[in-house]
Amino acid sequence: MNEDTSVGLVEPFIESFDEPLHLHNGKTIDSYQLLVETYGTLNAERSNAVLICHALSGNHHAAGWHSSSDRKPGWWDRLIGPGKAIDTRRFYVVSLNNLGGCDGSTGPGSINPATGERWGSAFPSVQVIDWVNSQHRLMERLGISQWAAVIGGSLGGMQALQWAVSYPDCLRHCAVLAAAPNLTAQNIAFNEIARHAILTDPDWHNGRYADHQVIPSRGLALARMVGHLTYMSADGMADKFGRDLREGSLQNADETEVVFQVESYLRYQGSQFSTRFDANTYVLMTRALDWFDITDGFNGDLTAAMASTRARFLVLSFSSDWRFSPARSRELVNALLNAGRPVSYANIETDGGHDGFLLGDPMYTALFAAWMEQVVP
Amino acid sequence: MNEDTSVGLVEPFIESFDEPLHLHNGKTIDSYQLLVETYGTLNAERSNAVLICHALSGNHHAAGWHSSSDRKPGWWDRLIGPGKAIDTRRFYVVSLNNLGGCDGSTGPGSINPATGERWGSAFPSVQVIDWVNSQHRLMERLGISQWAAVIGGSLGGMQALQWAVSYPDCLRHCAVLAAAPNLTAQNIAFNEIARHAILTDPDWHNGRYADHQVIPSRGLALARMVGHLTYMSADGMADKFGRDLREGSLQNADETEVVFQVESYLRYQGSQFSTRFDANTYVLMTRALDWFDITDGFNGDLTAAMASTRARFLVLSFSSDWRFSPARSRELVNALLNAGRPVSYANIETDGGHDGFLLGDPMYTALFAAWMEQVVP
Repeated sequence: MNEDTSVGLVEPFIESFDEPLHLHNGKTIDSYQLLVETYGTLNAERSNAVLICHALSGNHHAAGWHSSSDRKPGWWDRLIGPGKAIDTRRFYVVSLNNLGGCDGSTGPGSINPATGERWGSAFPSVQVIDWVNSQHRLMERLGISQWAAVIGGSLGGMQALQWAVSYPDCLRHCAVLAAAPNLTAQNIAFNEIARHAILTDPDWHNGRYADHQVIPSRGLALARMVGHLTYMSADGMADKFGRDLREGSLQNADETEVVFQVESYLRYQGSQFSTRFDANTYVLMTRALDWFDITDGFNGDLTAAMASTRARFLVLSFSSDWRFSPARSRELVNALLNAGRPVSYANIETDGGHDGFLLGDPMYTALFAAWMEQVVP
Repeated sequence: MNEDTSVGLVEPFIESFDEPLHLHNGKTIDSYQLLVETYGTLNAERSNAVLICHALSGNHHAAGWHSSSDRKPGWWDRLIGPGKAIDTRRFYVVSLNNLGGCDGSTGPGSINPATGERWGSAFPSVQVIDWVNSQHRLMERLGISQWAAVIGGSLGGMQALQWAVSYPDCLRHCAVLAAAPNLTAQNIAFNEIARHAILTDPDWHNGRYADHQVIPSRGLALARMVGHLTYMSADGMADKFGRDLREGSLQNADETEVVFQVESYLRYQGSQFSTRFDANTYVLMTRALDWFDITDGFNGDLTAAMASTRARFLVLSFSSDWRFSPARSRELVNALLNAGRPVSYANIETDGGHDGFLLGDPMYTALFAAWMEQVVP
């Protein structure tokens, strides 16, 4: 780790909430805990707090290192740190594992106090608006009355957008990266295939796999392979893998073997993911993606939804992102402009695909840093 | 069925071959049979024969009806028949189930004469060039010395292309629709996910599932869902499904239920496919797709490969086809032009995606018909 640009060693902490949280679907979670990390220092005015919302497979560990032996820093370490786009010399950055997650916050793997058993698939469906409500409580708990900015990519961008609509007075800036007002049929369909792989795995056991001391690892690996592949771009994959073989030639290949580098890479990604991520959480998160629609409550009128916001917006799309295409970001930008709301927009030229928001494209990080510079702490 | 434009009731027939077929991978198939259908009449000069090559999940039944109670005609009935693009009043159309298939030709479901048992996954890897060699024998068997045209879409287009390179004197015209000189990394990756779903299904049993009286239906259904989804276009899906729900509202939805129409549609497609298609054949066919490279034997030089052909070409791409993108078709067209070979090309504007070549877009069928009109029988 580079001590000049890294937030260094960080330690997550637990915040517990005992007041019932009423969910969008009518159910209630009586109590829950959130695992949180912060980077930087809250100023005396408590005005420099920035909330980071994570995407499907993300968590609270957005920057820095948990130990000096970690192989990798937090998932957005490229953007968060001293002198980086989200500059921890200026901002107090708050990052959490969402409710329903599998990295320390209350979720399907937690014990349901009412039954004394693991929730499993009985954990209530949590939607984007529920996350935002739970994050609002976290904000109050931390003694913050308004975020300088709420920032997120992909599913995280949807949360940022929901913040701007649900709590317009609680954020001054809103950065929505590689996101959309809702998912397209194609995007839902990819999520459905991922879920179907999990739900048809014989080790799924209706989501009570932990009771059987198994995990639906085949389904989870397939789900990740679908996700990972579709978050990359065709050009990016062509550059990275092309038609390279693992070894030997196609002449003597066996049809049941892994032959191409890209096959081997995908299988490895799937296999790794299945050991670290919870299947119930995956199902829950993809459902939250599918169900999100920022025009809910506005009769499907995106301009009306955006007119209800008060934040200054940054919208970024990534040219080769085909799951959350630039056209979807521009729908949002047009609605904000039509509503007379302040928005900066750029489409980043990259072959990084949807994962572009996680990567370090120089134009992306420079534009993002420039926009963050005008955020007054 | 409309008797003016349909080839009517058709009956497939078996052609048996007892001379060993030497495969590209060095293995040999001692004997095999192909299931064949023909439409129209072979003329006295035996000069009006057209070969149809099928794609991944296709078969010999390209046009007409097997019985008056069939729900659907053959898979390319839109294009084959009296007065249609491939006009059976002018042409003698030959269509077969490829070697390794599961619809009547010798394949993994057949008995291996050497063992008296089903081949299963021990069936040799058949590649595009092997299909073309087996089709060449069929041509000779039918007393045809030269095809008026060889025509195929997708994997079928790859066979047509291979015909033009392997047997340049045996075809006068070559129509390559929605195909590519080889697959991209992204395209291989989608096939790998489909295969991985099958190979990790507990009912796969190393491809010997028939011995266990099961089929890997979960894997096969997932494979089909991936295929079907990626053969459609995002715009086509948005028009067809949008965010329509099956019933009710998202408010009360359960995260394990099918909620959106598009989910229900995909599951149905997967489920249907898993009852009619063989898993070993699916693995074999996708491998043939992955392994195909028309520049094999030409040091990767596509222009050199095309310079070896003698047919007149038609290349068609479909604007919203992202698995076999128009750019890949244009590579082929440019190589043909650079090699001084005659080629007609069009990119059909459609939201039909890769499936566009199976559908009835008016511009597509009109252009195809016009090109076929200049094919002298």
